[in-house]
Amino acid sequence: LNFELKILGSNSAAPAHNRHQTAQLLSIYNQLYMIDCGEGTQMQLTRYKVKFHRINHIFISHLHGDHYIGLIGLISTMHLQKRESDLTIYGPPGLSDILTLQLKYSQTILSYKINFKEYDPSSRQIVLDDEHVTVETIPLKHRVACSGFLIREKPNKRRLNKLKNLEQFNLQQLLDLKDGKDILDEEGSILYQNEDFTLPPKKARSYAYCSDTLYDEGIIGQIQNVDLLYHEATFLSDREERAKETFHSTARQAATIAKKADVGQLVIGHFSIRYKDLNPLLQEARETFKNTVLAIEGETIAVEFVSLF
Amino acid sequence: LNFELKILGSNSAAPAHNRHQTAQLLSIYNQLYMIDCGEGTQMQLTRYKVKFHRINHIFISHLHGDHYIGLIGLISTMHLQKRESDLTIYGPPGLSDILTLQLKYSQTILSYKINFKEYDPSSRQIVLDDEHVTVETIPLKHRVACSGFLIREKPNKRRLNKLKNLEQFNLQQLLDLKDGKDILDEEGSILYQNEDFTLPPKKARSYAYCSDTLYDEGIIGQIQNVDLLYHEATFLSDREERAKETFHSTARQAATIAKKADVGQLVIGHFSIRYKDLNPLLQEARETFKNTVLAIEGETIAVEFVSLF
Repeated sequence: LNFELKILGSNSAAPAHNRHQTAQLLSIYNQLYMIDCGEGTQMQLTRYKVKFHRINHIFISHLHGDHYIGLIGLISTMHLQKRESDLTIYGPPGLSDILTLQLKYSQTILSYKINFKEYDPSSRQIVLDDEHVTVETIPLKHRVACSGFLIREKPNKRRLNKLKNLEQFNLQQLLDLKDGKDILDEEGSILYQNEDFTLPPKKARSYAYCSDTLYDEGIIGQIQNVDLLYHEATFLSDREERAKETFHSTARQAATIAKKADVGQLVIGHFSIRYKDLNPLLQEARETFKNTVLAIEGETIAVEFVSLF
Repeated sequence: LNFELKILGSNSAAPAHNRHQTAQLLSIYNQLYMIDCGEGTQMQLTRYKVKFHRINHIFISHLHGDHYIGLIGLISTMHLQKRESDLTIYGPPGLSDILTLQLKYSQTILSYKINFKEYDPSSRQIVLDDEHVTVETIPLKHRVACSGFLIREKPNKRRLNKLKNLEQFNLQQLLDLKDGKDILDEEGSILYQNEDFTLPPKKARSYAYCSDTLYDEGIIGQIQNVDLLYHEATFLSDREERAKETFHSTARQAATIAKKADVGQLVIGHFSIRYKDLNPLLQEARETFKNTVLAIEGETIAVEFVSLF
């Protein structure tokens, strides 16, 4: 089952060089989770043929316009499409005020319900816990209140070992084995040990989204060992001072966080307008953390199960 | 000197078929006046190589998102570009609340000053009167408070008749002739009659922008004889009922207004998402008013001086 990240935009501040502002879609078991929503995100969804009604959860990291301006247009178009199912929007204080004011003046009564879930950007909070994932906020250090998001797949079940004689079991017994239970006789004594017929579950996959932030080793504990880390890399190292002033990071700093957190793969984004060519950013990051890619709009980054054998 | 309209977008409600939401630029004597500002307008400006700093006046017709959502992004990018000169934004009540709230939460202190000029959408008001133009609101009938804009070039000066002996005059006398004055002797008696050396001024040009609105003959008096009329034409006539329900117009109704107001040229826009091919809308309008064109983004419609001879 899939676990993949689609980049809809990854430019910082303003659109430039045909690059859009930040927006991403995480697809887990065919559920779509949107993360940030810069101006024009609804056009990007159309370009990449994503059906709007498949999006049920939208996470907004902070209230700089390049991370949320596209939201009101997306919400409005969902209304025009006669959406019926609830939409849940997770954001910092203020987001619901802005959207509510815009809907008030346009006199729009939406065809569906929006659930606003406001999180406190100063602390780690679990904002979503459903059958597929848990989502936890990652407090970041930026000019305004800002949170990243740590999205973890729910633990997987044990896998049936096909080298063993499984035909002796009925369906309920097979489900019990996947749940880690032993097979018991009528008196409740163990007939078959679970470990003799199953293999350990595949490791649950995880994604951490960290934008926008100062270089901050304080997040390393929380994102340790994630399979995929998105970390902003607004500047090259020769502008480390500028990064610090504006509460952003360099490509080398993003890679340093990835290395110290021992993540599987790093994707960098939130590129400054000053860089038309992004390769120097990629090269700089790879000097510190080899398994790095650029967040290029339209591209998909798949997170594969880690083999346990 | 030029007087031309550049279409940046003309789709209604949501972007579709690679068409953007409403935004226009009127260029008069190289001054740029923006009218409405749908999502992605800043990207459209970049696509058509328009320098943002050349825009000093932005007119917003109403607070449906497809007419103003692009404003906060444009304002923010002007700030990133370190704009210094004032920007004046003309809008209905509520627009400054929305933008002020967005700027508050992003903690942005702009590098330049915005002058908000709020108009009352229920009455005709002159909102701008500068050296080049006057701009008057046109009250429209829509679901929310909505105004069009009537933009008139300032009266032109009389033209010197090059067939006459003009060499006998000094510079001040030539300027006086263009201002319609006679040339006097030292005692104040008329030496030369103005009409003997000048021709009437070229007719001042005018543009009326009417979106979004029900078919409303009440506007005809105000827009009578304009050189160029933009009138929304959301639907074809077979959906006249739907147009009425949603406070919009059909292509035929737009053309009827153009005919009754005896305008020079009609441009129709605000096309419904349902029309991928726009030619049926054009054909329908031309049956009633021949000199009609479609508002196609990227295209420029020039208003020429009407020859007086």
